[in-house]
Amino acid sequence: MCPHAFIPYKPVNPKTRLSCVLCQEERESFARAMLEDVISAVKEVNCSPVVISTELIDSEDVQITVKDADLNQTLNSLMPEASGKILIIMADLPLADAASLKRVLATEKDMAIVPGRGGGTNVIYLKEPQRFHFDYYGTSFLKHVKIAGDAGLSSEVIDSFRLHTDIDEKEDLVELLIHGTGKSRAYLEELGFVLSVEKGRVGVERKRQ
Amino acid sequence: MCPHAFIPYKPVNPKTRLSCVLCQEERESFARAMLEDVISAVKEVNCSPVVISTELIDSEDVQITVKDADLNQTLNSLMPEASGKILIIMADLPLADAASLKRVLATEKDMAIVPGRGGGTNVIYLKEPQRFHFDYYGTSFLKHVKIAGDAGLSSEVIDSFRLHTDIDEKEDLVELLIHGTGKSRAYLEELGFVLSVEKGRVGVERKRQ
Repeated sequence: MCPHAFIPYKPVNPKTRLSCVLCQEERESFARAMLEDVISAVKEVNCSPVVISTELIDSEDVQITVKDADLNQTLNSLMPEASGKILIIMADLPLADAASLKRVLATEKDMAIVPGRGGGTNVIYLKEPQRFHFDYYGTSFLKHVKIAGDAGLSSEVIDSFRLHTDIDEKEDLVELLIHGTGKSRAYLEELGFVLSVEKGRVGVERKRQ
Repeated sequence: MCPHAFIPYKPVNPKTRLSCVLCQEERESFARAMLEDVISAVKEVNCSPVVISTELIDSEDVQITVKDADLNQTLNSLMPEASGKILIIMADLPLADAASLKRVLATEKDMAIVPGRGGGTNVIYLKEPQRFHFDYYGTSFLKHVKIAGDAGLSSEVIDSFRLHTDIDEKEDLVELLIHGTGKSRAYLEELGFVLSVEKGRVGVERKRQ
């Protein structure tokens, strides 16, 4: 059976730290493009995407709509009913690709985890989700490794910059323009974003509004 | 024969973007601790470290001292004499470990490259260095991939956050305190650095001066 890939997603007013370069409507389109990239990647490795969205979205993929945005509560309430292996992957990882996800799914341990920048958790793969519980926010990477250990689950940290790079801030757009290949990169280019180099440091600028 | 691992290093007044939290003497000790971590990692995968330093340093490892700090010129002048495979790895990658470096060295292509954050090049491994030339600074990752292609060299991008994470700014210290295991992490802890969580975001603070 294909593992389910749960993808937490916020369609309305997402990515506020990008407000300096994108208006709300653009941030919403951009977040959706990133979600589409993540969905493509998980489908490529034969996972079934399940979008956990804070609003009902127009999509052919399976979705769970949660009014309350507490991700931990939502996931922890789903896990007891989960049958088989599951993947949880954030919607703001547009560099996710089949090769990196294959490394996650190939783990021989009970859990594979990919840290995000700043101690977050970008991807978790669980063979026995019933034995785990989620504690996102803050240094969730360290918390999740400990939760696994306390539950007697072995874990592996997957060393991937593609899955490590969550897109939150203007500087992160550099990574997408350099390494991205999907819809979210195309959307940025459509908006006029290009790489800029100033005093040897690489940034992004928007050529037109 | 063990590949040589060239490690560019600046011992005097390095890492100026860390001046907000470290004085010059501390930045110098910290840069040295990071260098030691990189040297340990390359030795673990049976490479012979060659430190390319802008000053003579007290070290038992082989070093090349270059008065002029132009890294491209230095490396490009060394390559014609290089015999065998070589690795170039930056000195500010204290999360480098044997597992990530093994993936670099295991490439079946002519070149393996690891991008740094912001389009830089953190690691290059070349089987035939004579056919390559270096063009660091700016979006060097894109330039190096193109240089390889133009020279008819096949290349592979190694997807590693440990080798992707160069330590330049205060925020980067979070990664070292979470994922580091070597001397540079110990040095930060010795100075009193700890993780701090504010409004869900993880940073570092210095508990004592």
